[in-house]
Amino acid sequence: MSIMRYISYSILICFVCTQLHAQKMDWQEVEPGIWKATVGKPEQYNLLTASGVSPYHNGLMKLEQSKFPLLKSEITAKIIDGKTYLKFPLDKTEQLFGFGLNFKSVNQRGKILELHVDHYNGTDNGRTHAPTPFYVSSKGYGIFINSARYLKVYAGASVQRDSKNPPEVQDRNTDPNWNPHPYSDGVEILVPAEGVEIYVIGGPTPMNAVQRFNLFNGGGCLPPRWGLGFTQRMERLTNAAEVFKEAADFEQRGYPLDFIGLEPGWQSKSYPNTFEWDKKRFPEPAKMVADLLKKNIRINLWINPYVSPDAPFYKKLLPYTASHTVWAGVVPDINTDSGKNILFTALNKNKVDIGISGYKIDEVDGGDGYLWPDLATFPSQTSAEQMRQTYGVLMQRYTTELYQQKNLRTYGLVRGSNAGGVSFPYVIYNDYYNHQDFITALINSGFAGVLWTPEVRASNSPEEWVRRFQSNVFSPMAMINAWASGTKPWTFPEVAPIIKEFALLRMQMMPYWYSEFAKYHFEGIPPFRAMNLENGFQNITPIQEKKNDNLEENPYAKAMVKEIKDQYMAGENLLVAPMFTGQKSRTVILPKGKWFDFYTGKYVGDGEVITTNPGLDKIPVYVKDGGIIPMMKPLLHAPKPDEKVDIEFRYYGSKPATYQYYDDDGETYNYEKGDFSIRTVKISKVKGKCVGSITNAEKGKPNTTKKITYKMMTL
Amino acid sequence: MSIMRYISYSILICFVCTQLHAQKMDWQEVEPGIWKATVGKPEQYNLLTASGVSPYHNGLMKLEQSKFPLLKSEITAKIIDGKTYLKFPLDKTEQLFGFGLNFKSVNQRGKILELHVDHYNGTDNGRTHAPTPFYVSSKGYGIFINSARYLKVYAGASVQRDSKNPPEVQDRNTDPNWNPHPYSDGVEILVPAEGVEIYVIGGPTPMNAVQRFNLFNGGGCLPPRWGLGFTQRMERLTNAAEVFKEAADFEQRGYPLDFIGLEPGWQSKSYPNTFEWDKKRFPEPAKMVADLLKKNIRINLWINPYVSPDAPFYKKLLPYTASHTVWAGVVPDINTDSGKNILFTALNKNKVDIGISGYKIDEVDGGDGYLWPDLATFPSQTSAEQMRQTYGVLMQRYTTELYQQKNLRTYGLVRGSNAGGVSFPYVIYNDYYNHQDFITALINSGFAGVLWTPEVRASNSPEEWVRRFQSNVFSPMAMINAWASGTKPWTFPEVAPIIKEFALLRMQMMPYWYSEFAKYHFEGIPPFRAMNLENGFQNITPIQEKKNDNLEENPYAKAMVKEIKDQYMAGENLLVAPMFTGQKSRTVILPKGKWFDFYTGKYVGDGEVITTNPGLDKIPVYVKDGGIIPMMKPLLHAPKPDEKVDIEFRYYGSKPATYQYYDDDGETYNYEKGDFSIRTVKISKVKGKCVGSITNAEKGKPNTTKKITYKMMTL
Repeated sequence: MSIMRYISYSILICFVCTQLHAQKMDWQEVEPGIWKATVGKPEQYNLLTASGVSPYHNGLMKLEQSKFPLLKSEITAKIIDGKTYLKFPLDKTEQLFGFGLNFKSVNQRGKILELHVDHYNGTDNGRTHAPTPFYVSSKGYGIFINSARYLKVYAGASVQRDSKNPPEVQDRNTDPNWNPHPYSDGVEILVPAEGVEIYVIGGPTPMNAVQRFNLFNGGGCLPPRWGLGFTQRMERLTNAAEVFKEAADFEQRGYPLDFIGLEPGWQSKSYPNTFEWDKKRFPEPAKMVADLLKKNIRINLWINPYVSPDAPFYKKLLPYTASHTVWAGVVPDINTDSGKNILFTALNKNKVDIGISGYKIDEVDGGDGYLWPDLATFPSQTSAEQMRQTYGVLMQRYTTELYQQKNLRTYGLVRGSNAGGVSFPYVIYNDYYNHQDFITALINSGFAGVLWTPEVRASNSPEEWVRRFQSNVFSPMAMINAWASGTKPWTFPEVAPIIKEFALLRMQMMPYWYSEFAKYHFEGIPPFRAMNLENGFQNITPIQEKKNDNLEENPYAKAMVKEIKDQYMAGENLLVAPMFTGQKSRTVILPKGKWFDFYTGKYVGDGEVITTNPGLDKIPVYVKDGGIIPMMKPLLHAPKPDEKVDIEFRYYGSKPATYQYYDDDGETYNYEKGDFSIRTVKISKVKGKCVGSITNAEKGKPNTTKKITYKMMTL
Repeated sequence: MSIMRYISYSILICFVCTQLHAQKMDWQEVEPGIWKATVGKPEQYNLLTASGVSPYHNGLMKLEQSKFPLLKSEITAKIIDGKTYLKFPLDKTEQLFGFGLNFKSVNQRGKILELHVDHYNGTDNGRTHAPTPFYVSSKGYGIFINSARYLKVYAGASVQRDSKNPPEVQDRNTDPNWNPHPYSDGVEILVPAEGVEIYVIGGPTPMNAVQRFNLFNGGGCLPPRWGLGFTQRMERLTNAAEVFKEAADFEQRGYPLDFIGLEPGWQSKSYPNTFEWDKKRFPEPAKMVADLLKKNIRINLWINPYVSPDAPFYKKLLPYTASHTVWAGVVPDINTDSGKNILFTALNKNKVDIGISGYKIDEVDGGDGYLWPDLATFPSQTSAEQMRQTYGVLMQRYTTELYQQKNLRTYGLVRGSNAGGVSFPYVIYNDYYNHQDFITALINSGFAGVLWTPEVRASNSPEEWVRRFQSNVFSPMAMINAWASGTKPWTFPEVAPIIKEFALLRMQMMPYWYSEFAKYHFEGIPPFRAMNLENGFQNITPIQEKKNDNLEENPYAKAMVKEIKDQYMAGENLLVAPMFTGQKSRTVILPKGKWFDFYTGKYVGDGEVITTNPGLDKIPVYVKDGGIIPMMKPLLHAPKPDEKVDIEFRYYGSKPATYQYYDDDGETYNYEKGDFSIRTVKISKVKGKCVGSITNAEKGKPNTTKKITYKMMTL
């Protein structure tokens, strides 16, 4: 056989091999603009079955139509040795966002990640609290891999030899522009299972793809109104008397307070946990909770899922626990009916049923050393890996169910989540505590289908305390979690007035936050999200194409040079640009369109980079032209369901403006049955004066507004 | 059914499930003191088949006998869903060493690791250049998992619920000694394959277990004599004229030089590579190599395995390459006969066959972005994962074969290795460059079956240059790899005399290093290794038991408090305690027995912590009582095979001393056929005078010694 024939023959063999492994993909439009393909034999247990949620079909129906956004032939799947190999196409200029709650980067193109529920440890490598296997392309589509396995992702970081679009071959010896990361024409994903469900999610915009993803996962959560107020966590061994004193201190000093968090010491033992009130520290929990509720203050309880031999239900639970313990506590298998019932009965009894408002679910993420090992086994046959990828979701699901049964909303904290958890009313937190990276996480939360709080803990200086507090106020949960140091809002007297001003601002803005969360629920729009999802900020040509441009003329080129990970959108109308300790000034990139100062209403710029030096008493916040912000007076607690409040609609800029104002009872799930109102606010400037109107709530639908006023902020 | 019956029934089901998965293990003694068990269906391709080596049976026969070191019933294996779950027992006081080339820690107990060939990235998490799946217990046995997969290891970091030795249940609320890492009674290892070969390796000492592991892998490598001299790497775009000038500069200034390394620019193109000499920079490579060899100077060539389309063999190789490229170069599948032959023919032609002494094999380790992805496929059907775990071993194996065919030894550099690579004459290096951690890696290399060089690159100060150089001299390869900065030994004139003194000391000690490497080969004793393998340093009770002890009376308690990772044994008789930049003094922990200063012969201590402040011109080195160090005069190049040298045996302390002095031709593999001599040196102090003797070499066996003298160092 000649060499040439031999080569041809070998290539043929390779080709045949590849063809043998190749999987045919049949794309079905399962919801408007969402296509599903099933490769091989997907596992029964996945992110969607773990969450148990259904798509919010009505929301999906309202979105603009979308065509299948990719060339079907360019999506390929193979199964080799029990693993599924996926490839999705990638243009030279495309940017990728998502792949979970990253803390250091927004654009994920070029990354190699192992999506793995874990404590975030300082590197965007896929190990994080919510490693959601979903990404969004700047071209306006999304991809979701519905697998509860550790997925290995090459996000434009692998190059196939036989690619039709190969990278240039360079010579490092002599080429000064030699590129260590040659162009890759695909996102490749390795699924360690013999099949998987894949979803392609249409746009046409990246925001539309995010919306579809969130709505497909049931729509974003709608917290109770009080959840959007202010919360303080107490020292771990505190007692009932100190809790009452804390509530009284807040009241007396004029700081808002909606719920108080109790740390491990509410239990008789912790790490592992008894899930029983400590009788000395909390002799009458039901009475304490009831007395506090009368003051409109709620209690949130810390837990982790590891059960002490001293828990009253330990023996009953034992057969439904994992093969391995954590801190010598057993791990409930909540994928068994019995395990689930035993644990959640305990979480209900003397807790939810006496009025506890929610949980802080700790230690369901990792580090590896604080969780069951990958070779643990569970009675339900769920593998340790699948359990790790979903335990946080399961805990959210079943605690939420306790509240659904009472027709009362909860709003809690959790350290681990994933796709499927979008609709659960939980906010992620961790111990990483880098302020800048906390803001980047807030940005990425909007791609990951989760909420994130840049909580405030101990601070080294009054400045740090203020800077952290200010951004915390523009986040899903305004929380001081300084229980270890015992820091209170007023601990730094020199800045206490600033802290109070922002704590009260949080309360004033409650109508805005509530309407924006309604958009998360009904439309899938993340309340906190990247600039990249904002009109006028998109269609940015990537850095390679721009590096010779004049940066002063084209801020977007600079925006690409330095990834924009320190400013974000908060609701429909606000751009927030936090200040960090040590900064006297900062630059802010304003998308195209006019922007106005949130506090003064003054014009600040249009599609440009501005520099601001706001002083310690302000966090830079900007409102888009025609932006409306509904506000109320600075109450110390969220209004009760039957409490009507005055609403002031603040109007910025000069464009005729429209706003959808959401209202309901603020506490129950009745909105799911249609018990809500969405009222259209219109404001325009007529002869230099502000003219506003609001539609009436439909008859019989909730209306908690009293007096309505309109305020022209831009004079 | 009553609850109790239900529980019993469920427990029974769990028990049955566990039993169903449990694998029977049949332990066979395959070599003296080495037992093998086969679990499930092990994969055909593993670390031993990749290396192709056979145990060095004669060496194993000479070791003290060992019983099976563990209770067989305490070693368990299960196979669940295509993965193998292993557990080995662990006592409360046991310490664990090994699990590959770690850089920050010596004692691995408590670690969770994924053994994964990779560039070391600053964390001891299993991702390293040689993630050898072998560990040694302080109790005197070893465990080796013969798998080329990514193994997940819980080294005493996982707790089984039904353990017979459960950890104490504590209450974090009130117990100030609450332990975040409760006692684990086992090492658990997850093998992602439906079976595996396991080896239990007997002692009775930890050193014996290490020796058995090395001998089982063919015995340690024996470098050519010149490999233990001095090497300098040149600027990447250097040319033949500059190479000659470098050689002349070293000669003229009186610095030793045995081989010169050429970086990527020796090739016409690199990254990807042509494997062809650049005709402008190196017009006559064969003549250059021959001319240098006449001066007793050799050439080493940098390569990585990624092949440029401009390589002359590219088209022929193409069918035998991976599905993915690296830097747009194809990846040879050297597990196909054709791929292997094409690549290694190219590495022979005009390189090995013209006298090139060896290779520096780069980029066979990772980071993930500089290697094929985990979803690459190879024509040989070797998975990307298995290929990654073994590519460095395969490259070592087949380059070594080129030299074996010429009956000439090589000594090169490689960035990736694994178990199976023990016998290959390669030294690992990387870009991490933390001096302290480089020393810890040197210590751990002795547990991992590899050699490691703490090479010298650019330094920020004369002090750093000296401190790095001094420890480099007491390592497997004394190398300056400062090609990017072009630093020469004499670049810092103020310390050049110190550098020269230590470069020459390296040459003087060549007889010692050579005899010590012979022990690596014939007896499996690592030439560079942890204090923990030294008699008088073992049997240290762990920290938990010691924390109330008086540290001044018991240095080992302190030794445990601060892990000993900055001093090491070099050969049979030397303890090296490097100084790091900024240090004026340091403490050294001396094992039990008298110790003496290497330079002066003076007594320094016995089983105690000493403090030394040696000044910049010395690295602290100590010799044990009765230690003999064979030295020669400071030649500028290793002696040629036919060159006889005077040997001075330096004798330290007062104990009657014995030393096994090894000799052979220094260049060929004839020693494998018995062409070597081991001569017994005896020295004792008689009436204050040094009395020495040496046995003759057997008739017809190599003897390269001329005059022999004995020098009493301790007066």
